[in-house]
Amino acid sequence: MATSKRGKRSFLLSAMPVITAWASVAGKKESEGPLGHCFDVTSEDTLFGQKTWEQAEKQMQKIALDTLMKKAGINRQALDLVFSGDLLNQCIGSSFTLRNTGIPHLGLYGACSTMAESLLLSAMAVGGGFFDRVAAMTSSHFASSERQYRFPLGYGGQRTPTAQWTVTGSGAALVCATGKGPKIEACTVGTVTDLGIKDANNMGAAMAPAAYDTIKTHLEDLSRTAQDYDLIVTGDLGQLGKEMLLELARRDGLSLGGKLVDCGTMVFDLEKQDVHSGGSGCGCSAITLCSELLEKLNRGKLHRILFCGTGALLSPTSTQQGLPIPGVCHGVSIIGGRE
Amino acid sequence: MATSKRGKRSFLLSAMPVITAWASVAGKKESEGPLGHCFDVTSEDTLFGQKTWEQAEKQMQKIALDTLMKKAGINRQALDLVFSGDLLNQCIGSSFTLRNTGIPHLGLYGACSTMAESLLLSAMAVGGGFFDRVAAMTSSHFASSERQYRFPLGYGGQRTPTAQWTVTGSGAALVCATGKGPKIEACTVGTVTDLGIKDANNMGAAMAPAAYDTIKTHLEDLSRTAQDYDLIVTGDLGQLGKEMLLELARRDGLSLGGKLVDCGTMVFDLEKQDVHSGGSGCGCSAITLCSELLEKLNRGKLHRILFCGTGALLSPTSTQQGLPIPGVCHGVSIIGGRE
Repeated sequence: MATSKRGKRSFLLSAMPVITAWASVAGKKESEGPLGHCFDVTSEDTLFGQKTWEQAEKQMQKIALDTLMKKAGINRQALDLVFSGDLLNQCIGSSFTLRNTGIPHLGLYGACSTMAESLLLSAMAVGGGFFDRVAAMTSSHFASSERQYRFPLGYGGQRTPTAQWTVTGSGAALVCATGKGPKIEACTVGTVTDLGIKDANNMGAAMAPAAYDTIKTHLEDLSRTAQDYDLIVTGDLGQLGKEMLLELARRDGLSLGGKLVDCGTMVFDLEKQDVHSGGSGCGCSAITLCSELLEKLNRGKLHRILFCGTGALLSPTSTQQGLPIPGVCHGVSIIGGRE
Repeated sequence: MATSKRGKRSFLLSAMPVITAWASVAGKKESEGPLGHCFDVTSEDTLFGQKTWEQAEKQMQKIALDTLMKKAGINRQALDLVFSGDLLNQCIGSSFTLRNTGIPHLGLYGACSTMAESLLLSAMAVGGGFFDRVAAMTSSHFASSERQYRFPLGYGGQRTPTAQWTVTGSGAALVCATGKGPKIEACTVGTVTDLGIKDANNMGAAMAPAAYDTIKTHLEDLSRTAQDYDLIVTGDLGQLGKEMLLELARRDGLSLGGKLVDCGTMVFDLEKQDVHSGGSGCGCSAITLCSELLEKLNRGKLHRILFCGTGALLSPTSTQQGLPIPGVCHGVSIIGGRE
C-alpha cells in the first residue's frame, strides 16, 4: 500500500504525488500587491470580458485551467479529473467552467479552504492509484462575494476594521503520479470547529480555532514540530486571525517557532492597499500557493511547507438566523522539487 | 496497488470497500410513499423540532449520522472521515451537522448527485488505504429548497406539470475496509453536461444527458452491458427525465435492457401523491439507496446495481442570468453482500 493513516486525521503518501504545474490568475488590486509580479495572468478588467461578476469568476477559472494546461504542455483530454469549488451559491463558478468540456469533475464545498481540500483529494486520487493527472482548482471574486455575503457594492457600506478583502483570483495545480516538481507528502483533514464567533466581518477570528486545531493535530499525528517546516502557511486568517492563532498556540504551549505566515497578509500590502485585516476568499490562498509558494518550493528556496487552507462555513442565511460561524482547515505538507 | 483506472473515467477496486451500515431519515410525505416502511426514522414534524427549515435539515443529517453509528455499533470517535454536502447555500446543512463534533470532514457540492459523489470518494479514501471507516452522507428538505430555488412556500405558486417534489430526507452510509455488507466494486466520475435546457421546473430533462453520458461511459470503460446489472438506478430524473434518458439511449442504439429505474419515481406514488414528475433532491437517491436498495443488496435479492446520482448544477443566480442548467452524474457499482 502506497499510503498510510497516521494518528487521528492524517495520512502519509509513500508514493508522493508530484505537482508538475501551477497557474494563477488575478485581478487589478491583486496585481498591484506584493505578489503582483508572480501571477501568470492579471487583468485590469474586473469583469474579465464577461457580463456578470459570476461569469467573470467562471472566466478566471477557465483562464487558470487553460494556463495550467499550457504550462504543463498537455491538453484537456489528458486530464483525468478536476476537483474544484468556489464560494458562489451552488458553486456555479466551478460547474460553469467545466460545462461541456468533457473533463470529469468532482465538486467541493470547503469555502476558502478549497485550494487545500482540492489538493488533498487530488493527492488521494493520484496517491491511491485511481488516476494519473488530476487538477485542483478554485476561485473567488471580490464583487460576487460582497454582493452575496454582505452588501451590494452600490450601497457603499463602511467596512469594519476587522473586515477582510476578498481576493479576485483563481489558482490551479496539476497533481501527477510522475514528473518533476514539488511533492505532496502528507495531509491532515480538518474538523468543523467554532468558538462562537458570530461577526461575519471578523472571519479570521472565526477560522483561527480550526486552523490551530489542524496545525496541532498535524504535528501530533506525524510526531513533528514546527521546526520541520520552513513555513506554516494559513489561507486567509488576515492580521487579526493570525494574531489569534498565535495566541491560541501560546496559551496551549505549542511553539510555532516563528514559522507562521498567512496568505491574507502576503497578497496585499495592508498599509497601502486599504484592505483592513488582509485578503480572504478561496482565491487568496490559491493564487499565493500557485505562484510564489510553489515557485520557491520548485527552485529549492523552500524545502517543506505546511499549507493550511482555512474556510468559514457560514452562509448569509445562517448569519441571519443568529448562528455562529464554524471554521474548517485542511493541511497539506508539500516538499521542494529538488528534495 | 489495490485499484486501477479503467477507460476514460472509471476505476475498479480490487480490494473492495464494504458498506457495513446505512441509515435513512425521512419526512411525513416520504413516510406515506411506497418506501415508507423501509426508513429507519420518520417524522410527522417537518421542522424536526427545530426553529428553521435549514436547521431541520441539519437535524435530519444529525439523526442519520447517529442512527448510522448505532446500526454499525460504533461511536463517532471511531469514524475517520465524513464526506457530505447538501443543496443549501454554502452547504450549511452539512457543516452545522459536523460542527464541534471532532469528526474530520470534507465538504462536497454535487447538488443531487451528492450521495453518489460521497460514496465514490469514500470508496477512494478507503480503497486507497487512506482511512478505514468513512461515512458518506447528504440531505435535502422540501421547504428549504422551495424557498431557496423557487418561491416562498407562503406564496402558494402553481407548480408546472414537469416540476418535481424535493424529498425531505437524509441518508448516510458507512464505508469500511473490512466487514460484512454490500461492496463498492467500480466507480465512474461524471462530466458537467448540458444540452441547453433552461427551465428550472424541468430538472429531470436537464440532468438526463449527464446521466446517459455516465451510464454509457461506465459500460464502455468496463466493457460491460446493462445485462451485467440487476438495476441501473438514477437519482432523481423523475418520470420525464427517465423517459428522456431512455430516448437518448434508443437514439444512440444502446440497450438499457429494461434495467433502468429512478429513485424519483420509487420514493413517491406519482398517481396518488401529487408530486407531478416525481421526487428530487439529494435526499431522494440517498434515502432510496440507504433503505430499500442496500437492504436488497445485503439480503442477496439484488446482485449488482449501478447507482447513478444525478445533479442539476444551477443556482437561482445562474437561472436569473439566463444561463442553462448543467447536469452531472456519478456512477457507483455496488454488489450484493453475499457475492
